[in-house]
Amino acid sequence: MMNQLEAVLRKAGDIMLHWENPAVFSKGKHADFVTEADVAVQDFLMEQLARLFPTAKFFAEEKKDNVLTDDLTFIIDPIDGTTNYFRRRACSVISVGAVENKRPVLGAIYDPYHSRMFHAEKGKGAWCGAKRLQVSQEPLERALIGLGTSPYYDELMELTGRTVGALMPRCADLRRTGSAAMELCDIAAGRSDACFEWLLQPWDYCAGVLLVEEAGGRCGNIMGGDATYDKGIPFMAANNVCFEELRTLLQKIKYE
Amino acid sequence: MMNQLEAVLRKAGDIMLHWENPAVFSKGKHADFVTEADVAVQDFLMEQLARLFPTAKFFAEEKKDNVLTDDLTFIIDPIDGTTNYFRRRACSVISVGAVENKRPVLGAIYDPYHSRMFHAEKGKGAWCGAKRLQVSQEPLERALIGLGTSPYYDELMELTGRTVGALMPRCADLRRTGSAAMELCDIAAGRSDACFEWLLQPWDYCAGVLLVEEAGGRCGNIMGGDATYDKGIPFMAANNVCFEELRTLLQKIKYE
Repeated sequence: MMNQLEAVLRKAGDIMLHWENPAVFSKGKHADFVTEADVAVQDFLMEQLARLFPTAKFFAEEKKDNVLTDDLTFIIDPIDGTTNYFRRRACSVISVGAVENKRPVLGAIYDPYHSRMFHAEKGKGAWCGAKRLQVSQEPLERALIGLGTSPYYDELMELTGRTVGALMPRCADLRRTGSAAMELCDIAAGRSDACFEWLLQPWDYCAGVLLVEEAGGRCGNIMGGDATYDKGIPFMAANNVCFEELRTLLQKIKYE
Repeated sequence: MMNQLEAVLRKAGDIMLHWENPAVFSKGKHADFVTEADVAVQDFLMEQLARLFPTAKFFAEEKKDNVLTDDLTFIIDPIDGTTNYFRRRACSVISVGAVENKRPVLGAIYDPYHSRMFHAEKGKGAWCGAKRLQVSQEPLERALIGLGTSPYYDELMELTGRTVGALMPRCADLRRTGSAAMELCDIAAGRSDACFEWLLQPWDYCAGVLLVEEAGGRCGNIMGGDATYDKGIPFMAANNVCFEELRTLLQKIKYE
């Protein structure tokens, strides 16, 4: 199943890079954009995966009326990092996770700019190509943390700013790539130690959760419990050294 | 002069990438690190540039007692993005600016991971290799803004957080690469539209200022006036469409 998924993702990467100047449309909310490439990549992925896995269902960013059941479901972000994509920042990925009984069983994230394939299967480890990935062991005070700004949600911007101010003295520094799926690959590979976003959608994190967990890290809802996949949640991920301390700190910041 | 500077920077890039596991030392302040590679690259740059330009002076990150005079002075950051460097994030650059009468006359920034040479001479445009660079024309409400977190200065973290909260509704989104010099290259190339940091040092921005200005953008002290090079300042850069509006907004946030 993984080999087939990887082959589809590589072809989707070619489609993504083929545009010179993709048309950009607003989706209505603040800074929420879609390009013609997002739609084309998603159409290609759904068509190819439906052919390979005829009983599978789909839950995808540019699809309406997403509903999650217990069936095998592909959770798809055709281009994670859409703004990076049309601003030519070479930091956008294609993210496809598969869940069964609402839990991730398979995930692949493809970075077409550097031909890097990140992939994980439940119980079989996390990989970038043939290289096994492992999270870092940095404690919170030395942690590099991926900042999610929840840019589509005006009501979360003050909380996000307050989180930055309160977190900076407690960690090493923040990074913001503009692609949550890429941040999760970075955590799985040990290049950063944690990330958070006060509201993030399942297609942004589904594949990445399995990568981080199979690399020895943890993911969850900031307010408690595991990540879920039927709607957006306050999401975080971290190596296992700083996960609990960061979760407690973020909860405290929210209720201050 | 530019050809000689570029040749030196390329060799310095080889030195930078040669380490497998550079030793990392704290410089005392929060998250302020230096590696043995920073020191080796700086030693190499100063030795080579002193040979080529015997009368030039130096103002450099890992050098003590920096004093700026009216003489030709190289302002050097041997590795801008030191944390990225030892965390293997492939986002660190070598930045060398030259000032005369305390104004930039020459700047080169080398990204050894992608063999990209960004360079500018006063009055001769900004370039990446042979490609001429030009800033974007995005207005503030559509701007992608590079966030500087001033990670070494505990007293600025609350202000930085407050700035994030107040800025997010007024722009498209934030990015944080962890290399101020790289952010300035991105602005010059039109991949982002502005950046700010409440306290930034001359070696972080000197070469980048000339790149942004020669690409049609503007740089300055957030609190007013041009950038200066004898000590750290509240620094900002932007395309000319959003510079003044962003400066006014940042000043207002500071005094709120």
